[in-house]
Amino acid sequence: MASLSEIGVAATINILSALAFLVAFALLRIQPFNDRVYFPKWYLKGLRSSPLHSGAFVSRFVNLDFGAYLRFLNWMPAALQMPELELIDHAGLDSVVYLRIYLTGLKIFVPITIIAFSVMVPVNWTNGTLKHSNLTYSDIDLLSISNIPPGSPRLTASVNVKEHQLNRFWTHLVMAYTFTFWTCYVLKKEYESVSSMRLHFLASERRSPDQFTVLVRNVPPDPDESVSELVEHFFKVNHPDHHLTHQVVYNANKLTSLVSEKKKMQNWLDYYQLKYSRNQPIKPYTKTGFLGLWGKKVDAIEHYSLEIERLSKEISIERNEIRDNPNAVMPAAFVSFKTRWGAAVCAQTQQSRNPTLWLTEWAPEPRDVYWDNLAIPYVSLSIRRLIIAVAFFFLTFFFMIPIAFVQSLANIEGIEKAAPFLKPIVEIKAIKSIIQGFLPGIALKIFLIFLPTILLMMSKFEGFVSLSALERKSATRYYVFIFINVFLGSIITGTAFQQLNSFMHQSANDIPRTIGVSIPMKATFFITYIMVDGWAGIAAEVLRLKPLIMYHLRNFFLVKTEKDREDAMEPGSIGFNTGEPRIQLYFLLGLVYAVVTPILLPFIVVFFGLAYVVYRHQIINVYNQEYESAAAFWPDVHGRIITALVVSQLLLMGLLSTKHASQSTPLLITLPILTISFHLFCKGRYEPAFVRYPLQEAMMKDTLERVREPNLNLKSYLQNAYIHPDFKAGDEVENEVISEVEEECVTVPTKRQSRRNTPAPSLSSSSTLPFLRTGSEHML
Amino acid sequence: MASLSEIGVAATINILSALAFLVAFALLRIQPFNDRVYFPKWYLKGLRSSPLHSGAFVSRFVNLDFGAYLRFLNWMPAALQMPELELIDHAGLDSVVYLRIYLTGLKIFVPITIIAFSVMVPVNWTNGTLKHSNLTYSDIDLLSISNIPPGSPRLTASVNVKEHQLNRFWTHLVMAYTFTFWTCYVLKKEYESVSSMRLHFLASERRSPDQFTVLVRNVPPDPDESVSELVEHFFKVNHPDHHLTHQVVYNANKLTSLVSEKKKMQNWLDYYQLKYSRNQPIKPYTKTGFLGLWGKKVDAIEHYSLEIERLSKEISIERNEIRDNPNAVMPAAFVSFKTRWGAAVCAQTQQSRNPTLWLTEWAPEPRDVYWDNLAIPYVSLSIRRLIIAVAFFFLTFFFMIPIAFVQSLANIEGIEKAAPFLKPIVEIKAIKSIIQGFLPGIALKIFLIFLPTILLMMSKFEGFVSLSALERKSATRYYVFIFINVFLGSIITGTAFQQLNSFMHQSANDIPRTIGVSIPMKATFFITYIMVDGWAGIAAEVLRLKPLIMYHLRNFFLVKTEKDREDAMEPGSIGFNTGEPRIQLYFLLGLVYAVVTPILLPFIVVFFGLAYVVYRHQIINVYNQEYESAAAFWPDVHGRIITALVVSQLLLMGLLSTKHASQSTPLLITLPILTISFHLFCKGRYEPAFVRYPLQEAMMKDTLERVREPNLNLKSYLQNAYIHPDFKAGDEVENEVISEVEEECVTVPTKRQSRRNTPAPSLSSSSTLPFLRTGSEHML
Repeated sequence: MASLSEIGVAATINILSALAFLVAFALLRIQPFNDRVYFPKWYLKGLRSSPLHSGAFVSRFVNLDFGAYLRFLNWMPAALQMPELELIDHAGLDSVVYLRIYLTGLKIFVPITIIAFSVMVPVNWTNGTLKHSNLTYSDIDLLSISNIPPGSPRLTASVNVKEHQLNRFWTHLVMAYTFTFWTCYVLKKEYESVSSMRLHFLASERRSPDQFTVLVRNVPPDPDESVSELVEHFFKVNHPDHHLTHQVVYNANKLTSLVSEKKKMQNWLDYYQLKYSRNQPIKPYTKTGFLGLWGKKVDAIEHYSLEIERLSKEISIERNEIRDNPNAVMPAAFVSFKTRWGAAVCAQTQQSRNPTLWLTEWAPEPRDVYWDNLAIPYVSLSIRRLIIAVAFFFLTFFFMIPIAFVQSLANIEGIEKAAPFLKPIVEIKAIKSIIQGFLPGIALKIFLIFLPTILLMMSKFEGFVSLSALERKSATRYYVFIFINVFLGSIITGTAFQQLNSFMHQSANDIPRTIGVSIPMKATFFITYIMVDGWAGIAAEVLRLKPLIMYHLRNFFLVKTEKDREDAMEPGSIGFNTGEPRIQLYFLLGLVYAVVTPILLPFIVVFFGLAYVVYRHQIINVYNQEYESAAAFWPDVHGRIITALVVSQLLLMGLLSTKHASQSTPLLITLPILTISFHLFCKGRYEPAFVRYPLQEAMMKDTLERVREPNLNLKSYLQNAYIHPDFKAGDEVENEVISEVEEECVTVPTKRQSRRNTPAPSLSSSSTLPFLRTGSEHML
Repeated sequence: MASLSEIGVAATINILSALAFLVAFALLRIQPFNDRVYFPKWYLKGLRSSPLHSGAFVSRFVNLDFGAYLRFLNWMPAALQMPELELIDHAGLDSVVYLRIYLTGLKIFVPITIIAFSVMVPVNWTNGTLKHSNLTYSDIDLLSISNIPPGSPRLTASVNVKEHQLNRFWTHLVMAYTFTFWTCYVLKKEYESVSSMRLHFLASERRSPDQFTVLVRNVPPDPDESVSELVEHFFKVNHPDHHLTHQVVYNANKLTSLVSEKKKMQNWLDYYQLKYSRNQPIKPYTKTGFLGLWGKKVDAIEHYSLEIERLSKEISIERNEIRDNPNAVMPAAFVSFKTRWGAAVCAQTQQSRNPTLWLTEWAPEPRDVYWDNLAIPYVSLSIRRLIIAVAFFFLTFFFMIPIAFVQSLANIEGIEKAAPFLKPIVEIKAIKSIIQGFLPGIALKIFLIFLPTILLMMSKFEGFVSLSALERKSATRYYVFIFINVFLGSIITGTAFQQLNSFMHQSANDIPRTIGVSIPMKATFFITYIMVDGWAGIAAEVLRLKPLIMYHLRNFFLVKTEKDREDAMEPGSIGFNTGEPRIQLYFLLGLVYAVVTPILLPFIVVFFGLAYVVYRHQIINVYNQEYESAAAFWPDVHGRIITALVVSQLLLMGLLSTKHASQSTPLLITLPILTISFHLFCKGRYEPAFVRYPLQEAMMKDTLERVREPNLNLKSYLQNAYIHPDFKAGDEVENEVISEVEEECVTVPTKRQSRRNTPAPSLSSSSTLPFLRTGSEHML
């Protein structure tokens, strides 16, 4: 167990490295040649033009305004200045509500920290249990619950002492209640405001196809009618006053692969053309075989041009084939209605007597659709769910087995045994040290890096039809993995399977006790973890090292036109499936240690504060969300914080029962019961806002629209909204993403002029008010 | 542990008592003066007139047709002859599906019994473990799994023996799989047919107000508009094309109590008038005080006539007051729509942005509404739910505490200590023996008799709005109570709280083992239980001893008119809240013992067979359901059988693990996983048929109706459908129930003539076919 001074050293190191990242970021971001790496969002919105084309030659690439270097941290206040309503407009509700997770962390933990330090630290500190014992202890432990003497020491202490100790535990009990109530209060407020933000957002949104459209799956096969006819008839009969049009879903997986093949060829062609133009006399050649390493030598430009031509032809043939072949139509369709009311009704009701046919749900946004999963039948879905549940169980509890196997192979003796002929090579000193030093760790590291991808693939296999749902489900699984393997795994050392095994052989009483006892001893470990992962990790996020390198590589080798440069930017997105579970770990740590070792709390608070600023900056300037789910993830976030709260209460119960303070058990048992019933209340009160769409809202919007645009031709507006992206305008697939984004920007009235440098000036307080006004006008 | 011969004795006693009940029933039911007790259903349907008014004097009261005595068991085939479709028409879907629970039991257990006896009994029997051991054992145990030697006896036995034993356990494993698959198969088939029966029933049902009506609760308060105006405006705006009319709900609790007071007075008046008419010269007198025991002596007939007059006035005043007072209007309303489609849409969608306001759900049938709970607001509902959950927990686990307290008071020393002045009385020998012999048992018995009522009151407090939902919820709670206190309580002797305490201190591994080990030893106890509760109990049910006595008492003291006699019949109803959980206990016992001690299975099969015949008879001739929920309870029934299956699998796992057959554990773990995912599949596939109403069906019925009755005035039809029963036609409250029933009968085309005696003749096979035809016409 580390002492305070050791933690101080660790803190210094981590603060320094975090600062180093921040300084590097501050320096790199004001260099014009990095502009597209650090402000891609503005480029994508068309509100910022490249600084590389104007000004003196040197100043195009290096910032020579030395004042800028002095103000190197001013991005932080700048990031905080954009008002929330404008931010919703700028980056979407998902991003803003994602930031609210950090804000919720601050709202929960700042008051808790203050109370804990003013009440509990003195109570813990003024005891002498550890001093009088002959255990080894650290300064940290003096501030934790470990320093409270055990209660009811009937054999050793007098009644007076016992009463005194009981009073001490009473403090902890009262604190546990206070913290629980405070957390629940904040959670309720947040749920309330997020759900009203969501409804506001949906109400104030521009007209979009998904408001009128319902996704229908499991259309039953019919011998006499095609899917399209069947869908039309069914909805004409059952929604006679509201049905407008529909689009069937094509199975375009082959087309998709052809299009991506063509895109790759186009990249190579660009590369060679650029190479040729820079180095005129030498014609570039390539080989037709694998990776251009062998095979016939051909003129590269000519070869790729021919390939592209061939693929273009194949694509158009394939497209016609899909259009003509009835088997390419999948038993699913996007059905559009004349009114939002009609769509809301259809999405929320059961259509046919067999509840597994004609399944209706709100259509996701066109860009949010995960096309591959639209055709999975109902029975297959439940089998897939079972398979994935079992697979996830094994992944969580037995992932160490293949890794341990790789690690065992990766030691010298293992390799020599398995492949004796490698012995001479392995025995070379340099290679030996590499193998011994790196390989075992690398196997685990690679697994952990790929874990979110594996989880995302599992969700894809499970059959969700929108990207947002895929990410939400992956986030849940990632959270479970982190909870078991990082949180529990660190507290009770041992693999998850060993834990499972020991829990199976322990009584329901003993499990919280076993974990609870280890909790205070792991405080220093988690403090270090927070500093490394939370502080330095967040600071590294703002630097965007990987996109920075990739952008410059691409810029050098591939970029010919402005459009190519836009492609090379890789703004990325929030990454809900990995980001949110990590935040939840901090909630868990904070709530578990709030009563036990309050010294951990300031570290959590610093994490939430820093992360809030950094992610706000990134959301304003960098990330470009792939979809907009209107904060559909908040019920998950809320549920996980409640889980953390209940876990913290159970562990406190376990811990106190070892202190012989079992009189407090009934009081502690009521806490999780109250928390869970609070959760059920919130679920009933707020969750429907995230899964259903009230008819009142729909009717209001329909009426308004009818008044405003009486001559709107909705049918033509909805006609082609839900056509497979590769199918719609296949030839210009590359343009599409951008044009879609641009299209969106056109309809939003542009509120600011293009700016050449950092967005900071426009975010000064002088311009805040007008934005707020326009923002709120938009909301009303 | 009882031997086979002891069980034989018990069986003889119980079979004899069951036979005695059946003979008594057969004799009593053919006496004309009991006709109304044993055939009330036919009287209520108006298809049977009293035999007391015709024929010779003696034969009016005693059956003199001696042939009838010889055919005394012919009610059994008669009960089985009515075809299912006609039965639905006669008694409603609820009753028919209730019978299907017994049929499901037969379908599951008859094949299982056959397989178990042909495969497992020989396997168990041919082992010699118990013979070679020096344990005491009974003949029953020779047929149970106890006779299989433990596996993997590495230290004692040779490899050959071990393999042999393993093979024996393999039989049990294969059987466990076979039984699980068979049960699941039957369950799936049953769920399928019940859900299609439900949809058929709803589709073929006559027009009824609940098809067009939605119950709206939590109408928000509005300072400017009354509830009625608010409801009208809201639905006019949000369902403009479909809204038709609405009825607000009045708080008529005071009115209800006045009406029931008046009814009581009417009863007394009838009693005295009858007394006077029989005994002309003596005018009956009564006293005005408590129970007529003291106070002023008055002319009874005059007194009660005056009282009734006074109450009638008060009732009409109260009725006007409610109508005029805006505070008597509760924030709830029954909203009716022009089409079933409109009602289906409104019931399945969310109306307002705040999901706790304007809550809509299908209106229950008018006779199914539980009026008192209509006004409970949302927040109060969730608090009530929490309170009831905690209360039920304490009721289940600590109900022994007050009873033990009463029992301790009920012993001599306790009473003498508590109240020394009672000593002389208590010491009297007769009183002493009564106290010692009866009181302790009586406290528990009284509690168990009142338990269903207590549970029903808990459900009422929780706020359900229909009688059917109340009964379903009570059934769930009663099942939990039986499971914990009867099933587990008999296996592991000790109170539920002691069990809970020991489970808390045991590991998750040990709990099934602890229970599993005791399972085979309790087989004889449960066999006796089945014979007493299942065989003799069911036979007693058919005798209807309590209604028989009550009817004759009432008939003698109160009955003046034919109407009074109809009131006195008390046909009763199925009593889902107590009956179904008891059946479930038999499912649980059957599934648990199927692999362990198959000798128990025939007893279960006999129970299901006997109960099926008895209840079919009662449903045809006696019970008069208070409501029709269209088999809404089947998902509960299905879920509980699945629970029994999973419990049986876990206990088998625990039992086998003590036999050192731990190799089989992985195979056994997959069983509950498969069972649970089968349950989830069924839930998704069939449950929506029980909670939602498909739009396709609604639209089809609407269209048919529009074609058949184009000039239907729906508004006048629905105008007064949902008015509080005491409010509607208050003066003739007593008539109402009957008139409502009659009204129903009028609209159904009467298919049979009034018959004088038992319904058996008309049920002969000759008349079966035409009924089947009319029935199926009605279905299509």
